[in-house]
This record gives sequence, C-alpha cells and structure tokens, in this order.
Amino acid sequence: MFKRSSACRAEERREMRGGRGVVKIEHFWEPENEMHSRTRMCARLTLAPGDSIGFHRHEGEEEIFVILRGRARVDDNGVTAELLPGDTLLTGGGAGHAVESIGDEPLEMLAVIGKY
Amino acid sequence: MFKRSSACRAEERREMRGGRGVVKIEHFWEPENEMHSRTRMCARLTLAPGDSIGFHRHEGEEEIFVILRGRARVDDNGVTAELLPGDTLLTGGGAGHAVESIGDEPLEMLAVIGKY
Repeated sequence: MFKRSSACRAEERREMRGGRGVVKIEHFWEPENEMHSRTRMCARLTLAPGDSIGFHRHEGEEEIFVILRGRARVDDNGVTAELLPGDTLLTGGGAGHAVESIGDEPLEMLAVIGKY
Repeated sequence: MFKRSSACRAEERREMRGGRGVVKIEHFWEPENEMHSRTRMCARLTLAPGDSIGFHRHEGEEEIFVILRGRARVDDNGVTAELLPGDTLLTGGGAGHAVESIGDEPLEMLAVIGKY
C-alpha cells in the first residue's frame, strides 16, 4: 500500500528527551496496524537550526538516522561528530545518542527503529 | 556508531528482478555484523530515468520505500500509482511491487526491509 506525504501523521514534540525546541515527526507508517515487522518507527524528523534531541539510550532495539538535509552535531554514545546529508548513525544495544541541528537550514533525518 | 556517505557499500544491480537498466544501491548498514534488529536492509536506491525494478513479492518480511527525489510509477500489488518525494510504499505479507523511474531526474528512494 502507498501513502502520500500529506497523509502521514505529523506530531510535534517539545524538548524531546530533554533537548531544545521542537522536533517535527512525520510518521510514514504506524507500528500498530500498518507495519508487521519489528520496525516500531519509520519517520522523517525535522529540527530547526539550534533545536535538539537530548541524549537517550536504546535498549532492546536500534535506531538508524540518515541525514537528508542540513547539518547535525551528534553525540554518538560519548563521541561527538558532525554529520552531513548521506551520513548515517546507528544506535542500539544500550548505547545512546543525542542530535543537534547546527546548520543554516533545518535538519531533516530519516529515523527507523527496529526491535531486536 | 556513525558512517560517512562515502563509506557506505555501493553495488549496482542490472535488470534487478527482471527490470530495466541499473539500480545503484548504497547500503547504510550491513545486516550480518552491524544491524542486530530484524532489519535486513537499509539502503538508498538510485534509478536513472527509464530504469526499473521488476515485480517481486515479499514473504515473511516487509519493505518500505520512501521517495527522496524524482518520480516513480509503482505497481503496488496490482494497483498502479505515481509517487513523488515524501510519498511512501509498504509491501509485505506476500504482496508484491515494482518500481519505474519516470521523472526527468534520477529516482532516489530509501529502502528498509524488516523481517517478521
């Protein structure tokens, strides 16, 4: 089945995981009634410059970020890196991450969370 | 852990699933030694205008395509649709799909396959 961008469920989370500002989340598919694999989230995240997602851990699952647009400074389980479009971050097995939008344009990332 | 775009494993598949031309696949993460969830592929697919992936089914797993750039004509398990950037296709449980790049620029899609 297909879904138009305009039909994806959008939510806004403020100070997500203790971060700054707002994270816009567009959910491509829902885990309850649409996805039947162990993928529990498949979404596009947008953060205005300066906004961030605070450090948090993923236990019993892993999250993949793929940078689509903008520039990110990430805390990759204690290691700081700057990521650009096409770069990717994988966090799971109890490791943690944080993400900050540091470019001049919004940071857009694809986020996929797969349960073990 | 993070990975630069340039470090992602790239492969080219000709006449993929009976389609036309070449599909460039850039694998963000490898299922054998990097991903530990039931995600067996997380990649960016690029198809030049006119190239395609032939119809095939996904049994015991589901595949998500998210259109990033270009224009796609898909066979969504027997239903034809044209998809644009931000649109998404979900195919699993024995259903099938085919994709053709029909725009003036290359079709870029994110592809995620999750096993049940």
